[in-house]
Amino acid sequence: MRLLLISNSTMAGEAYLGWPRNYIKDFLGNSVKTVLFIPYAGVNLSSESIEKSWNLYEKKVAEVYAELGYELQSIHQFADPIKAVEEAESIAVGGGNTFYLVYMLHKTGVMEAMKKRVEAGMPYMGWSAGSNVACPTLRTTNDMPIVEPASFNCLNIIPFQINPHYLDAHPEGHGGETREQRINEFTAVNRQTTVVGLREACLLQMEGKTLMLKGKHPMRIFNFGKEAFEVNPEDDLNFLFNS
Amino acid sequence: MRLLLISNSTMAGEAYLGWPRNYIKDFLGNSVKTVLFIPYAGVNLSSESIEKSWNLYEKKVAEVYAELGYELQSIHQFADPIKAVEEAESIAVGGGNTFYLVYMLHKTGVMEAMKKRVEAGMPYMGWSAGSNVACPTLRTTNDMPIVEPASFNCLNIIPFQINPHYLDAHPEGHGGETREQRINEFTAVNRQTTVVGLREACLLQMEGKTLMLKGKHPMRIFNFGKEAFEVNPEDDLNFLFNS
Repeated sequence: MRLLLISNSTMAGEAYLGWPRNYIKDFLGNSVKTVLFIPYAGVNLSSESIEKSWNLYEKKVAEVYAELGYELQSIHQFADPIKAVEEAESIAVGGGNTFYLVYMLHKTGVMEAMKKRVEAGMPYMGWSAGSNVACPTLRTTNDMPIVEPASFNCLNIIPFQINPHYLDAHPEGHGGETREQRINEFTAVNRQTTVVGLREACLLQMEGKTLMLKGKHPMRIFNFGKEAFEVNPEDDLNFLFNS
Repeated sequence: MRLLLISNSTMAGEAYLGWPRNYIKDFLGNSVKTVLFIPYAGVNLSSESIEKSWNLYEKKVAEVYAELGYELQSIHQFADPIKAVEEAESIAVGGGNTFYLVYMLHKTGVMEAMKKRVEAGMPYMGWSAGSNVACPTLRTTNDMPIVEPASFNCLNIIPFQINPHYLDAHPEGHGGETREQRINEFTAVNRQTTVVGLREACLLQMEGKTLMLKGKHPMRIFNFGKEAFEVNPEDDLNFLFNS
């Protein structure tokens, strides 16, 4: 499989998809020419309608991919979204609200169609919500459950859960749970599942059976009943497939 | 109906259920003697098992209620949880993980049983996740979806959604959504539903048909296509029932 699972699209102050664009270019290389974009997570780029929101999202992402030399088209422009997936050269799943994304992927049948293609080798890119979709379920998203999907199940093409936008800070004056506390709640009721906290400006790249962490920060690993620990970009991540 | 919907149990540095305890005492008064506690949201107070976690949660909350003059017992100690609800004098639903709470309330049938009693006048107290459960659905929780409930539907005893622990701050270096952005995603796909952002150290009290905001801060009101606005503790909140 070929996966590029990106924590976040954009760091404060930079252009949209700023920091990851060189990684995207390296990942797609010169053989791929076209990208099928999944905009479903972008629910409110327009206040008029969700379709207009997806139009604006497509435009914003297509501009970045065009600069990198790829033609990007959104799945919502196709009459048959499953056929669009079956014929895609590569797929990019944009961030936004994970629940709405998963809701639409189940409703359209794109989840199953995409899983088949990705397992057969089609390059898959996702950021934020789009990274969560590669996991067994959406259960480690940070997003608000604004809609009830048919199921929490996702692509299940990696055997662990990603928590994107992982952050160590705790907002001042906030009586709610810290991120680490929230993940500890997850492992308490999902004791066999590993969670990886993927910090901003970091990504996971899978090439065949090799998984690599790339970016500026270490990644934090959570397992039930063990101390959380950090792994660095050069570390061997095979243990994530043997737990 | 008689409701006490509390944003958060505890402010930093104070004893557990510190700030709301006088409100709880005023709410229950002298006629009520016993409280049925719903501990389901507390998934990891013990690392041994969820039942031990609920035991510890019961102990912690019972100590506070004992100081106020009430005998509190947790529903997980009863062989028949539905019968326990049917015979309860009052109910308190503790905070923690909203998804696990709603999962258990559906699994046990306590959701339906509790709705009947509350609509018939039994006093209902909840904090954090326990406040969300009074809403039509869990869709405005901040919690991680660590388990998939049978349904997102909740008690639906108030016609609007509460976002507990509402905060204005945005953690530094965080590329994820702000709370207001997350709520705007909610209203974009749930255009008829009002969301109220209930800040720390605040609560909503309902007595019959009168709803009151109590506590230290104004409350922020979100509706699709309108500017968010603030209401203060003395303001008339009837508009929340007429939208």
